[in-house]
Amino acid sequence: MEIALIAAGVALLGLVIAFFLYNKVNSIEIDNETVADITSQIQDGAMAFLKAEYKYLSIFVVIVAILLFFNNGMETSLAFLGGALASVLAGMSGMRAATSANGRTAMAAQKDGQAGALAVAYNGGAVMGLSVGGLGLLGISLVAYFLGAGTDNSTIENAAGFGMGASSIALFARVGGGIYTKAADVGADLVGKVEAGIPEDDPRNPGVIADNVGDNVGDVAGMGADIFESFVGSIIAAMIIANSSSGTWGGEDYVILPIFLGLIGFIASIIGVFSMTFLKNGEAGAALRNTTFIGAILFWAGGYLAINRGIIDVDYGAMHAVVIGSVIGILIGLITEYYTGIEKVFGISPKAIPHIGEMSKTGPATNAIAGLSVGMQSTFIPILLIAAAIFLSNLVMGDIGTDAGLYGIAMAAMGMLATVGVTMTVDAYGPVADNAGGIAEMSALGDDVREITDGLDSIGNTTAAIGKGFAIGSAALTALALFAAFKTAVPASAKLSLSLDEPMVVIGLLIGGALPFLVASMTMTSVGKAAGEMVTEIRRQFKEIDGLLEGKEGVKPDSQKCIEISTDAALREMVGPGIVAVVAPAAVGFILGASALGGLLAGSLVSGVLMALFMSNAGGAWDNAKKAIEQGHIKGAEKGDDSHDAAVIGDTIGDPFKDTSGPSLNILIKLMSIVAVVIAPGLTTGII
Amino acid sequence: MEIALIAAGVALLGLVIAFFLYNKVNSIEIDNETVADITSQIQDGAMAFLKAEYKYLSIFVVIVAILLFFNNGMETSLAFLGGALASVLAGMSGMRAATSANGRTAMAAQKDGQAGALAVAYNGGAVMGLSVGGLGLLGISLVAYFLGAGTDNSTIENAAGFGMGASSIALFARVGGGIYTKAADVGADLVGKVEAGIPEDDPRNPGVIADNVGDNVGDVAGMGADIFESFVGSIIAAMIIANSSSGTWGGEDYVILPIFLGLIGFIASIIGVFSMTFLKNGEAGAALRNTTFIGAILFWAGGYLAINRGIIDVDYGAMHAVVIGSVIGILIGLITEYYTGIEKVFGISPKAIPHIGEMSKTGPATNAIAGLSVGMQSTFIPILLIAAAIFLSNLVMGDIGTDAGLYGIAMAAMGMLATVGVTMTVDAYGPVADNAGGIAEMSALGDDVREITDGLDSIGNTTAAIGKGFAIGSAALTALALFAAFKTAVPASAKLSLSLDEPMVVIGLLIGGALPFLVASMTMTSVGKAAGEMVTEIRRQFKEIDGLLEGKEGVKPDSQKCIEISTDAALREMVGPGIVAVVAPAAVGFILGASALGGLLAGSLVSGVLMALFMSNAGGAWDNAKKAIEQGHIKGAEKGDDSHDAAVIGDTIGDPFKDTSGPSLNILIKLMSIVAVVIAPGLTTGII
Repeated sequence: MEIALIAAGVALLGLVIAFFLYNKVNSIEIDNETVADITSQIQDGAMAFLKAEYKYLSIFVVIVAILLFFNNGMETSLAFLGGALASVLAGMSGMRAATSANGRTAMAAQKDGQAGALAVAYNGGAVMGLSVGGLGLLGISLVAYFLGAGTDNSTIENAAGFGMGASSIALFARVGGGIYTKAADVGADLVGKVEAGIPEDDPRNPGVIADNVGDNVGDVAGMGADIFESFVGSIIAAMIIANSSSGTWGGEDYVILPIFLGLIGFIASIIGVFSMTFLKNGEAGAALRNTTFIGAILFWAGGYLAINRGIIDVDYGAMHAVVIGSVIGILIGLITEYYTGIEKVFGISPKAIPHIGEMSKTGPATNAIAGLSVGMQSTFIPILLIAAAIFLSNLVMGDIGTDAGLYGIAMAAMGMLATVGVTMTVDAYGPVADNAGGIAEMSALGDDVREITDGLDSIGNTTAAIGKGFAIGSAALTALALFAAFKTAVPASAKLSLSLDEPMVVIGLLIGGALPFLVASMTMTSVGKAAGEMVTEIRRQFKEIDGLLEGKEGVKPDSQKCIEISTDAALREMVGPGIVAVVAPAAVGFILGASALGGLLAGSLVSGVLMALFMSNAGGAWDNAKKAIEQGHIKGAEKGDDSHDAAVIGDTIGDPFKDTSGPSLNILIKLMSIVAVVIAPGLTTGII
Repeated sequence: MEIALIAAGVALLGLVIAFFLYNKVNSIEIDNETVADITSQIQDGAMAFLKAEYKYLSIFVVIVAILLFFNNGMETSLAFLGGALASVLAGMSGMRAATSANGRTAMAAQKDGQAGALAVAYNGGAVMGLSVGGLGLLGISLVAYFLGAGTDNSTIENAAGFGMGASSIALFARVGGGIYTKAADVGADLVGKVEAGIPEDDPRNPGVIADNVGDNVGDVAGMGADIFESFVGSIIAAMIIANSSSGTWGGEDYVILPIFLGLIGFIASIIGVFSMTFLKNGEAGAALRNTTFIGAILFWAGGYLAINRGIIDVDYGAMHAVVIGSVIGILIGLITEYYTGIEKVFGISPKAIPHIGEMSKTGPATNAIAGLSVGMQSTFIPILLIAAAIFLSNLVMGDIGTDAGLYGIAMAAMGMLATVGVTMTVDAYGPVADNAGGIAEMSALGDDVREITDGLDSIGNTTAAIGKGFAIGSAALTALALFAAFKTAVPASAKLSLSLDEPMVVIGLLIGGALPFLVASMTMTSVGKAAGEMVTEIRRQFKEIDGLLEGKEGVKPDSQKCIEISTDAALREMVGPGIVAVVAPAAVGFILGASALGGLLAGSLVSGVLMALFMSNAGGAWDNAKKAIEQGHIKGAEKGDDSHDAAVIGDTIGDPFKDTSGPSLNILIKLMSIVAVVIAPGLTTGII
């Protein structure tokens, strides 16, 4: 158990480094008034939203904590609070850093050129990366050390409670953030670009600041909370499976291995992050990729070495499963890139984007059909890859003993998540570079600056695609590992059957399968509604504020009002999906019994992963099909013509797909799984 | 077993009645040259397509028959051929009658008014209804009598072989028909209505005849083959489950019960169909509904009476399950109607259509988001209803003995399918009335006639929605029953596990879940491609044929060319999905083993049913949102304005959703299940 203490110590050290990087970013002076003004508007808007969100959530968290206190006891309740708090802290620090780095990246591009701007944007992202990794490792280590955390049967709930805290925050953050950002984005585009005919990021548009705030709220805070809970979820699942093992494998070394791997991965991530200092002067895209690779390779090497030197006494198969997970995650990312990207992937020209581009020529209907069709098609190979990850990690671990194959699956998830410190850095880098471009545009910093920020923005794409692959792959594998944990946590009296010829299992399977459709529908409707309110407000301002549209000197839009609309809508609309995610497994579990709940988890896993892939990729493909037309990749179509109009419509349909509904589903399946683990000890055969 | 012979006899009698009705319809003289001309063009086009399709399919059927001969023996191979042949015969006779009735309904409306027209359209549909019911009952009875058909363990494959023949034809018919009809529909609309600005069904449009042919090919032949295979599939599944039972229940009476119920249902259907003779003079909508209700009530009464009088010695629970199935099917239909219809359902105003209508006001993107969101949402209650059907039918039968609950689920499916003779009549009536309207329009028969045909068309909707509910509900329950049959057919040496904590089961579950997404994507892409070819051809004709667009006397479009394009595209594009459906379960079963195949069936069931509901209902909702605007139900939107344009785009996106991809998925899951049953005896633990 001293490993848990060491991990906690290193995690704290990582958090100190994150704080140091934050100060480094913050020390860059903004000596342009417009940039300073916009930066602070975005930062204020983003932090105000987070505070309002967390205030709302605190009510939910307190209620659930009280329920847990009575149902599972003090320790689980405390662990739950800890998980929620850690997720909140990671979100707030990452967000503060990212919103600081936005404008400063633009300034650095003006003063120091590409290398300087790259470093600022990267360090801005690294605060998020190290906060997520550090707080995750710190929290789970402390829970394991003080509350037992699955190292014996009575404390499984504690570890799961910590995960449930993190997952709850994650779902609300993703849904709320997604609604916030897309309400602003869709609203600003529909009135600004389509109706008024002014460019994107035009300072006259009252919705632009809200849109920029939204990028941070959705992509930085939302994504961070998502990855945070995947990271702790996979550790918890592996610990619980190992703990319940018996006979030929398991024991304390297997139980502590996930924390140990988290520790090695975090150290490797820190080194990866710091390697940017030397890499930044080379080709920017390679620099970004290489920090990730350095992290991954050091992590693998450390893991194998530790087993080899007897520091931890586990089978090599566990590390093989880790490597399998990493490789499969990368492949999922590349396939995603193939279906949603414009550029060649490993020398293979993508066909999906040109197809959607062609179909745009016959109008929005055929563009929409093509995008939906590409999204559905893009699920197939990733699913085969996830199946391969399950097969292979079971293969390398399964022989060791009962349920060791399931432990292997959790290890494969660790392979995608242990170096979260550096992968999350790259994920958060993307929106920083993107926002820097927007600020450069709004502040008229000139074409040179815009060129650098555009360059920095685009190089993040492939690396970000791999990050997405990790997010999706690890969500599926983590949910599966949590499923195994659920199985071990159900008492014998609940007569759990997981057999597909059991009617209650099939009933659960069907209900579980339908939940992602329901939540996707709710979030899409929310975006539509909120965007409608935004449209009405922006139209009103254009009409009522004299000289705004004409660009009269000194006339400014009322951006604050748009921020309020997005904030209110996000807070109001995130409640429904959040309640579904917590109440559905509890209701099915207590009313229909443990077997139905088992079916529910499997059903939601299958349809949730598929819908998440479908929606995220369709949205990404629509987005890039539009860009492909703008960049002249589609013969016979160009910016401003009918084909482009059709592609813009497709892009708008895709907005809630890729940034709200799709990503929410990854969290939904994990949250429902972890709720199931937490309530498992109290389950029966049901009451009907 | 004499029941099988009696059933065969009654089935033959029913087929004679169908022939009699066909002659009755055909005896109506068409004394309008244009009507005669269009009727024969549609009939020729439809029959030509069917012949070409069946020629294509005969290659597939022969190859599979040979494989079955070597793998399963002569009898299974013969049964397979019989199933395919019966489906083909049902399709051809129903189609010939429907295409005859189209023009004659229009003529009858002109001469005899509504009652006369109703009778012709209804009898045209009844030929399909009685053919489907009669050929299904005849075929499965003969197989049961001569080949054993699951009445002992060695002959399970024979019954399944018959079902596989029917299912294969069904999938190809649905996919081919769906692509045919939507290529023509989308192509004709895009160039005719949108580009050239001429009305729907305008005789100048070269695609209109192909569009009308398509309605018959898709809605009549495709739907008929679909219901045919559900009907025989549910009988087969129940027989196999009963056969493999032991101890407290089962035995010959349970094995023969499904055929017995098919027999009673068929007799009840014939009476229901004939009751139209007396009902036709009353309110048309009530007449249509009441024929169905008469059939259902007689069927229920007959079933209970037979048990009560000891004619068949089974538990009453079996009939309770039948009634549960019927009621749940009706409820699913009403919910479908609520989400996709304009009118009140049981006094409750639908919210979905007004919502899509409102969202059309902000353009095609928000209309599309709203339609997709409604489609996703509409899956939830039907899934709960299907879960309730499983729960209740298991409840009323489960206590009798092992697997009796699964038998009860098959009985619930029988409740939706046994009166197929009359429900399919109403389903086929719809397209006949619809086409009669089109022909009246093209032949300028006047507003009076059009009013009657429009009236007849619209009253079919609610009854058709119930038919759809039956189709979806029975598909899920039949697939589930076939799943149980699969389980009993796998040899012990294959070490079948259906437990969700088995990695191979999860792998199968994921792959199975992805297949409906893949097939939906393939069929949507096919429609897009084929519609593109159609657009090019219609544009060419408008450009190159002098005086066509201007409506110059004597100038006619080259409709034949458009028919060829639809035919070629349908034949070419139906191959891929068909191969996936047959090869995927075989490949997974033989390579990954029986357990993975079990997982695949469950995964495809869950995601297939959900995607079918989502796509069918989204498509239906878009369609009616457009109609709602046209009929003035949406304040501030009307035909021809921007909102209506947006709604037309949504309707076009929905075309392949509701008429190609969605319906194909119902068959996909059943075909894969029955392929699994057929190959089950040869399965092992896999080769990797």
